[in-house]
Amino acid sequence: MIGISDVWEAKQRISEYVHVTPLVSSENISSMTDAFVYFKCENMQKTGSFKARGAFNRILTLSDEQKKQGVCCYSSGNHAQAVCYAAKLLGVKAYVWMPETATPSKVEACRAYGGEITLFGKTGGDCAPLAKEFSEKNGVFYIDPCEDPYIMAGQGTAGLEIMEVLPNADTVFCQVGGGGLMSGVATAIKSLSPKTRVIGVEPETMNCMSNSIHAGRISPIERRYSIADGLAGSAPGPNAFEICSKLLDDIITVSDAEISRATRLLIERCKLTAEPSGAAALAGLLSGKAEYGKNVVCMISGGNYNKEVLADILLNY
Amino acid sequence: MIGISDVWEAKQRISEYVHVTPLVSSENISSMTDAFVYFKCENMQKTGSFKARGAFNRILTLSDEQKKQGVCCYSSGNHAQAVCYAAKLLGVKAYVWMPETATPSKVEACRAYGGEITLFGKTGGDCAPLAKEFSEKNGVFYIDPCEDPYIMAGQGTAGLEIMEVLPNADTVFCQVGGGGLMSGVATAIKSLSPKTRVIGVEPETMNCMSNSIHAGRISPIERRYSIADGLAGSAPGPNAFEICSKLLDDIITVSDAEISRATRLLIERCKLTAEPSGAAALAGLLSGKAEYGKNVVCMISGGNYNKEVLADILLNY
Repeated sequence: MIGISDVWEAKQRISEYVHVTPLVSSENISSMTDAFVYFKCENMQKTGSFKARGAFNRILTLSDEQKKQGVCCYSSGNHAQAVCYAAKLLGVKAYVWMPETATPSKVEACRAYGGEITLFGKTGGDCAPLAKEFSEKNGVFYIDPCEDPYIMAGQGTAGLEIMEVLPNADTVFCQVGGGGLMSGVATAIKSLSPKTRVIGVEPETMNCMSNSIHAGRISPIERRYSIADGLAGSAPGPNAFEICSKLLDDIITVSDAEISRATRLLIERCKLTAEPSGAAALAGLLSGKAEYGKNVVCMISGGNYNKEVLADILLNY
Repeated sequence: MIGISDVWEAKQRISEYVHVTPLVSSENISSMTDAFVYFKCENMQKTGSFKARGAFNRILTLSDEQKKQGVCCYSSGNHAQAVCYAAKLLGVKAYVWMPETATPSKVEACRAYGGEITLFGKTGGDCAPLAKEFSEKNGVFYIDPCEDPYIMAGQGTAGLEIMEVLPNADTVFCQVGGGGLMSGVATAIKSLSPKTRVIGVEPETMNCMSNSIHAGRISPIERRYSIADGLAGSAPGPNAFEICSKLLDDIITVSDAEISRATRLLIERCKLTAEPSGAAALAGLLSGKAEYGKNVVCMISGGNYNKEVLADILLNY
């Protein structure tokens, strides 16, 4: 488990490497919801997603010996880009397993950062055993995308920044994939402002966290498709499950159509590019499934879209 | 002709109605150009373009009698939306002529603001005589999109805001359509910082201002297609021609392919939605046709895209 002091320390550690991203208000979305709506723009973060926060916090806390050996991970995209970017800046070798279905531009970005990329299987989950096996055989530090406490604390700095700018936030909507971002953000927000409601949002076809929370124990689901590919996962890890179970006020699900519409609204009305996973929190707000009060923040977790998917959203939602 | 005092007065007059838009830096574009590149985000202005500035300045300076009679204009999109929006907020009736080819979402937006819309012809130019005739017959004030000095001074407030934030700007790239924005911005910037270079950018197929400046007199061109539909025009008006001839350090042209690529870069790398016209200034910077120094601003004039066009740009540029 992590606490607010871990998030504060992460903030100091990573501040020279990552952006304090803007908290942008939107009159247009505010008028649709009868609230004051703000977006935390992690789409404008280094590497295009919040993942840079955790990656820097993790690599910066490795020993010199560990850094010399390199790091490894698996990811369908944003975690991979963040690890490769942070590793490059910190002079560390990165070995990354990505699914063959990964967006080509994400694979290219990782290679451009100097990462050694292996493509395998159809999902991040297919790649996970390979990265872990490589780590064990070669003594290379494995960076878990969600469960590592330094990763969680790093992602939590986004929550800290929300409270610094909008201490009277009534509700924060945040997307849940593996739960690393949600755990860090919920830790920061609930520590600083217990009355601020924190709402998790999952795609209805990838609802492993809500399924587990409602069951009271980790309950794997069958893998299904969602347009929000960054929120894939069949079961939360024990750390994320424990933190989210304890801290979330509610967790709701949204359909791919709702996520697509939210993505389109961000581009059309707010002039902000989000990937579908990044727009899921707004989809949660607009679903009306959770109470939210007056001052509302939606996390835009990333903006690294697949161009065919985004073109389809522009035309059809 | 207008002067800096007209722009200052406009700023005071319209400040409660329009946004001070962000000046956003981009490391990604900076690294491509070996400069510090900033974007003036008029895509985030009320109604999605800079046009709101001029529309408010014009309607706010009408007499009570004029306001009672209403206002009229022609426009393929952004000027129409701005006039309808400002008129609605100020309790004035707006009559607008738009081409039948106008983007449906722009027509809908105008109607939603309470404007009385007539669709006619293929271009804004086809609509111009109808709006002027209506004005003369009915004593309704005609709001010219570019030549009216209050429109120019209103648009110039965007230039004022650039200099407030970045007084040491070396170069400002700004798109030129009818020249209203360019005239206002150049007036503001050259008054406050004569050494700051001001570069006009036109589509190469709609190069009426550069054609005229190079000829030393207003020289109409044949109408041709450009993806930057907001920059259409066959000849500059005398006021814009005079100001641009006097104040611009250079005027350059860019191809539709360059504009499309700049639009894609803004969405992909900067996570900002621009319409093609709005990305033309960045295309000018990237073209390498003008010297620019270290601190560079590109105007993003608007973000009201046609969805089919934007989807095509995402897929093919």
